[in-house]
Formats: sequence, C-alpha cells, structure tokens
Amino acid sequence: MTPAQDPRLVRELADVVGADHVLVDDDVTAGYRTDWTGRFTSPSSVVARPGETAEVAAVVDLCRASGVALVAQGGNTGLVGGGIPTQGEVVLSLRRLAGAHEVDGASGQVVVGAGTTIGAVHALAAEAGWAYGVDLASRDSATVGGTIATNAGGLRVLRYGDTRAQVMGVETVLGDGHTVTALTGLYRNNTGYHLPSLLCGSEGTLGVVTAARLRLVPRLRHRVTALLAFDTIDAALAAAALLRRAVVGLEAVELFLQAGLELVCSAGSLPRPFPDPHVAYLLVETAGQIEDRGELAAALESVPGIADAAVATDPARGRALWRYRETHTEAIGTVGTPHKLDLALPLPQLAPFLDRLPSLLAELAAGAQAWVFGHVADGNLHVNVTGVAPDDESIDDAVFRLVAELGGSVSAEHGIGTAKRRWVGLSRTEAELDPFRAIKRALDPAGILNPHALLPPATP
Amino acid sequence: MTPAQDPRLVRELADVVGADHVLVDDDVTAGYRTDWTGRFTSPSSVVARPGETAEVAAVVDLCRASGVALVAQGGNTGLVGGGIPTQGEVVLSLRRLAGAHEVDGASGQVVVGAGTTIGAVHALAAEAGWAYGVDLASRDSATVGGTIATNAGGLRVLRYGDTRAQVMGVETVLGDGHTVTALTGLYRNNTGYHLPSLLCGSEGTLGVVTAARLRLVPRLRHRVTALLAFDTIDAALAAAALLRRAVVGLEAVELFLQAGLELVCSAGSLPRPFPDPHVAYLLVETAGQIEDRGELAAALESVPGIADAAVATDPARGRALWRYRETHTEAIGTVGTPHKLDLALPLPQLAPFLDRLPSLLAELAAGAQAWVFGHVADGNLHVNVTGVAPDDESIDDAVFRLVAELGGSVSAEHGIGTAKRRWVGLSRTEAELDPFRAIKRALDPAGILNPHALLPPATP
Repeated sequence: MTPAQDPRLVRELADVVGADHVLVDDDVTAGYRTDWTGRFTSPSSVVARPGETAEVAAVVDLCRASGVALVAQGGNTGLVGGGIPTQGEVVLSLRRLAGAHEVDGASGQVVVGAGTTIGAVHALAAEAGWAYGVDLASRDSATVGGTIATNAGGLRVLRYGDTRAQVMGVETVLGDGHTVTALTGLYRNNTGYHLPSLLCGSEGTLGVVTAARLRLVPRLRHRVTALLAFDTIDAALAAAALLRRAVVGLEAVELFLQAGLELVCSAGSLPRPFPDPHVAYLLVETAGQIEDRGELAAALESVPGIADAAVATDPARGRALWRYRETHTEAIGTVGTPHKLDLALPLPQLAPFLDRLPSLLAELAAGAQAWVFGHVADGNLHVNVTGVAPDDESIDDAVFRLVAELGGSVSAEHGIGTAKRRWVGLSRTEAELDPFRAIKRALDPAGILNPHALLPPATP
Repeated sequence: MTPAQDPRLVRELADVVGADHVLVDDDVTAGYRTDWTGRFTSPSSVVARPGETAEVAAVVDLCRASGVALVAQGGNTGLVGGGIPTQGEVVLSLRRLAGAHEVDGASGQVVVGAGTTIGAVHALAAEAGWAYGVDLASRDSATVGGTIATNAGGLRVLRYGDTRAQVMGVETVLGDGHTVTALTGLYRNNTGYHLPSLLCGSEGTLGVVTAARLRLVPRLRHRVTALLAFDTIDAALAAAALLRRAVVGLEAVELFLQAGLELVCSAGSLPRPFPDPHVAYLLVETAGQIEDRGELAAALESVPGIADAAVATDPARGRALWRYRETHTEAIGTVGTPHKLDLALPLPQLAPFLDRLPSLLAELAAGAQAWVFGHVADGNLHVNVTGVAPDDESIDDAVFRLVAELGGSVSAEHGIGTAKRRWVGLSRTEAELDPFRAIKRALDPAGILNPHALLPPATP
C-alpha cells in the first residue's frame, strides 16, 4: 500500500471532493499514473479531482496533516515526469477546473481555471477578438496550469515571450496552506514580489495554481509564411539572427535539417518543397494587422545565402509549409522511440553545438542518429536521438555535458521534472540552488508539493 | 550616533571598500541621505561605495555580522524613499558598478553593472545596432539596479513590457550572504525558480543586485507620432483601447487633459497644437523597420471621436509633439509642490476614476487641483495634486482608497518604499503579504536589507 492509499486519507479526500472524484482502482488511475509517452509510470496511487479552489485547499491541508505528498497534474502532456507520482504521492488532477471565469475584451485579458486547455484559451480569445500568445503542438490537451508549471514556450516565444510573460495574476494554494487570490487585471502593480513569475516554471513545487489571468495579444489578420533553404547551417543561423533584428512582425523562426525534411516527406507523403536538397531550412512567419509583405520582403533581400525559398501569403499554403516542421515528431516516431532532448544555447553557441553533435553521437553509439529542429531564434533546440536503447542515459548525459560546456541549459521549455534532476547541476550552481531551496522551504515548509521534482537534494 | 556610525563598523567597511569609499561627514553624505525631491531625508549615516561584487558581498556580511541594516541606492531618483535610510542604516551606493561587462550584438543582449544609467544602456545598445526597451524621463540618472528594484516601466511598457521583461539574468548578493551569478544569455532556461523576476520590484529587500544581463530590442528606424484631441475623456479612452488592439507597431499611448495642456503651453511657451481647446489628448507613437504609415492611418480612420489631430513623421516634429506630454512635470512644478500619486487601474475603471476624482478632491480641499497624465494603455496614471500642504496625506489617502475601491494599485511603477507602506494593504491582502514575508525571511533571514521599505509588518 502506498501512502496515498491509506484508507483514512482516502475517506477524508472523499469527504472533501466527493467520493466520485477520488479514484483508487488501478484501472481507473492508470491514465493519471503514466505519462503519454509511457516512459514515466508509478505504482498504485490515489487520484483526487477537486472541482473548486476551496477543495484544492482542503486536499492540500489533508495531505499536509497526514504527511502524504501530492503531485499536481494538468493535461499530462509533460515530457519529464513532472506530473507523475513516483513514490505513492496523491495525484491532484486539476482538469475539472476548466471554466472561463471572465473574458475582458476591453482589456484583452481572460481569467480561466487551471484545467482549461490552451486550445480552449485560443477559442475564448478569438471570440473576444484577441489571440493568446502561447501556442504549442499539444494545445488541445495541455492545460493552463501545466503550462504555468513548466513555463511553456512553444512556437511564438520570439514575439510574445514564454508563459511567464502572459500570466498577469494567479489563484494558488501554496504548500503552507495560504490560498492567494490575485487575479486583478492590472498591467502595472508594484506593491510586492511577483508571485505569478515565481510560480511559472516551479513545476508544482511551491503552490497548486487553480486559476490564472492571462493577457491576450491582438489577433493578427495577415500572415506571411516562408520556407527558406540554406546550403550551410552557418548561413541558416546567420539568417535567423538577421531576421530577428530586421523584422518587427516576426512570429516564428524554426530550424530543421535535410535529414528531417527527407524523413517528413517520406513518412508523411509530403511533396518535396524544393527541386534540390539543401543542408538547413528555416520556417519563418510574420504577422500584422495590414496586408504588407514589405518588411519581410525587404529583409529577405538583405539576407545572404538563401539557396531557395517558398513564400505563402494565403493560409492554406502557409499551413502546408508548416507541415514540414510540425510533422517532425510524428515522423521521427516511425524510426524508433527517440530520446527527446530539449535544450537551449546562447545564440553564438548554436553553430559550435550543431557542429560537434554528430561526432559526439558517433563516438557513443554506432547507430545513434540525431534529428534536430527547434525554435532557433530563442536558442531552443529539440534534439531527438534514435537508434539508442530507451533506458540508456549515456547519450543524454553526453549531450547535456556538451550543452553545459557551451553555457547552455539542460531544459529550455520542458522543465526538469523527475527525469532531469540529475542534470540540474550542469545548468545551476549550488549558490543558485541553495536560495531556490530556501524559497521552497518558505512556501512549502512541510515539503509536500511534488517533492521529487525539480530541485535536487542539497549535497551533504 | 546612528548604528551605521559605530567606529568599529566604519573601520571594517573601510577595510573592505577602501577608506576613500566610506563617507562619514554629513556634508559629503547629504546627497545620499536625501532624495532629489527633498521629501525623504535621514539623520547622519555612513555611505559605503563598493567597486566590485566581492566588496558588496563583504559589506553585506559585515552588516549581517554587526546587526546593522543597509539600504542599497542607485541613482537616487526614486519617488517613495525606497533608497534613503530612515533609522541609521548604512547606505550601500552601487554607482561605482557602472561598467559594461559584455555587449553581445549577435544576441541583442548587454551585461552591465548595477550602477550603469539607463541612458548609458541606451548608448551601448545603439552602438551595437539595438535599442533598450525601457525608457523614462530620469534616464540619465536612474540606474539599472534602481530600475530593477522598482521594476520601472516608463514610456514603452505597452510594447516591450516593464523592467522585469528585460532582465534575463542577474548577479546579486542575497541577504543570507549567497552571491548568485546567473548572467548567461539564454532566452529559455527552465531549470528552477526565476530569480530575476523575483528581484524586479523587490526594492532591495531580498538581495543587492550588482549586475544584470538585459535583453535588447530591434532599433526601429521609422516613427510616426500623433497628437489626437478628443471632446470627452470617454472618447479618448475608447480610442486608446481601440489603438491598442489595432496597431501592432504601437509604442506609446499617453493621456493628458486640457488643463495640463494649457499649463505646459503657458509655462513652457509652447504654441497651442490646435486652434480650439478640447477635453483630452492622446500622444500616440508607432515605430517600425520600414517606412509605413498604413497601419496607424488605417486605425485612425476607424477611431471615432477624434476632434483634431497632428501627425508627425519626421523626428524633429515628433519631438515637438512629445514636449506637450513630457514637460508636464516641470510645468506643474511652477504651480506648487505637488503630491505625486502613481497609480494603476484596470482599463475598464479608468473612466469611473477620472469621473470621480475632481469631486473627491473638491470635498477634501478647496484649493486642490489634480493634473492627470500617464501611460493610459497600461492603466497607469500619474495624478499630481497641487494646492495641498506637502505633509497632508489625507488627499493621498482618499485617492488611494478610491483606487482600491475600483480594483487598482496604489503603486504602478514607483514602488512602495517607505512612503507608501501604510497603503500596501489597500492593494494586497494578508494572504498575499504573508507569503511575501516568508520569501523575505528565506532570502534575508537576518532582516538587514532595507527593512523599513515595501512590506508592512504583520498585524499581530
């Protein structure tokens, strides 16, 4: 019996959230105990599904009183095991908190429950004549709470920033039992520390977010999408840097390489975009309120090294170009189960990293192949490695050490969870981690919130 | 003798920063003990002027060991006494930390010492072909450290966000003695809590920032400035809301009223911008990389209620229009010493606030007059009240209570300091302040950093 299965605790949880919303059968809890990749799974556990903030607070109180830890979970789309219990923690599923509390079209803001999907936020925003700045492939499953926990980025960070840049206010139950409701729609408010920023990226270790006020951005009517081909990686990176500075309306600059393009064309039966193969590709998108290709066109004229280009101004053709980038994950899945390495580099270190990666992999495993794509204008690469046993972490370790050597981060946007805790020390010094631990103790003194995620234990 | 003047502490400070950089004479310390408005002043104190981060750390250690509090100070341009000692604290002046450590033109980032002025950051950015997103009237005195402490906003928050949105990394000496050096140039890094965001707006109560890595933004070559006149405040506010949504290149939307315009024209001998007087004015500016008035022109055509307009596309004419807004502070000074109330409202509450303000003031003081201007697209108003005794806080109290009733903030961008501590409770509940206090205790357990600023003591 895991700690969460203590019959008295189960009874008390049922008193709080209703018996229907406490799940104990392994069959029923399986979808909460295993992540979507199947990589992270837990022994038997108990799932509590509160329907309002007061119930969340009561569950946190119960767990604290009984000394049983809990793991908050949103859409369960995480990639690092941050929402999956490992040692019998209670799963606190926020999916029932999925309503819109307020749509303020005048200000361009929405208040939504933590269980609302990103797709639903997009729909609410569009109805009010706005858009939401964060977009990612898992939009129809990933929840607002989960994207706050991981400070999700995605496709438009370049223009609108990460989730931290969108969250104007939160309602949260902190580990110490305080329920903080700070959901006012103020663009400026310098009357204390900024709790929303602290919670973004905290992976449920400080508080359980139950609702958030999100800023919206103008809905842009005119888009230009371009696929640019380059014959060297350096030329592609130089173009990305130049576009970042020259094109104000830039919304996305995504990199992928020839091997990936070949794969998505064959796996997805897509037509080749250009007559000849090239080395590297940038998928570029700009958006604005008026029909205007001038800015991008002027910039493209000044970018050296473009070997070929396809430009789309109508949405259907734009989406067709996006498919070369967006079907990478699916296509790579046809080759094998990849090691998915989410990492970030200082922009000047992207070229050295991409230069050294193939030989590093070749040294470690003969059959290893890297598929590289990502949000290159933010220095965020997704390196997928196939041809390596799923549980062989030597590849991950070697790549992360190279990242650290180049001043990069072992997690750009997926977080640390339980999977990457062993590598946090590559990106953070003890002088950084110690204050993080002090903050954790301050807001969750009993250490009941996701205790096995994010922060590695202090070295004795 | 104040605690800071203890001869042993003075000797030890001199050992750390050098005798030349410990100021003890009242004549010499006067400029550090009194703010530029003369409103906040302290009895005798001691000023330490460290020249590097290790010296800052040693000063913090000394203060902690001797139980003497310290107040960090930058350019001393604050408006709420946040950088002025009140009870004999040591003044830790960061002005000597004014160098540029790194200008990364490829990434659009700079690393600068905390004592660098915002004007110097603008110059560094321009040299590297970029711009800095935060701009404010005190740019040539205000320092990077001070703007981090107050999370300064200014003229371009609408487009680029506040200081928090610019700070990618910090070097800081925390109250507990940790020196954290986290100055890597990563746009994405989800490997722990976001210390830069926590320090922005913390008013020197958690750590002393010694250096920061700032993101830069593209330097935009083409600007359009427009002064729009309206015959009702509601029409001006509706136009601001509409422009905010319709004009992607919008950089500033500043509001002022007829009384203010009359005053700046007479005090500054400026020509009247329009033949007839109107009720309210918006100073609007857009900027982009290509010469294009299409977006603003299209938006202006769709804005109802514009009674008159002046549009400038050349820099000199643009600056001339800005003078109607920027000389407000100076012109108001010719009428009397104003109570300067920096406040924020939810956008839908701007109209009710502006509607109720005159009668509220008339009730309280017959001679009181409000001069209103501000960053209206962010809901941030600067209400200056003349005709009231400088030390009569009943006006401030009444205005802040109205702000609170409407869901606003008693400090939009100037911070709390010592001056506004009595009103923090109007904008923050105890359930918010308690976790703030826990964070303060976690990072500054001895309570030596600016102990009389920002957070009010817990109600017993």
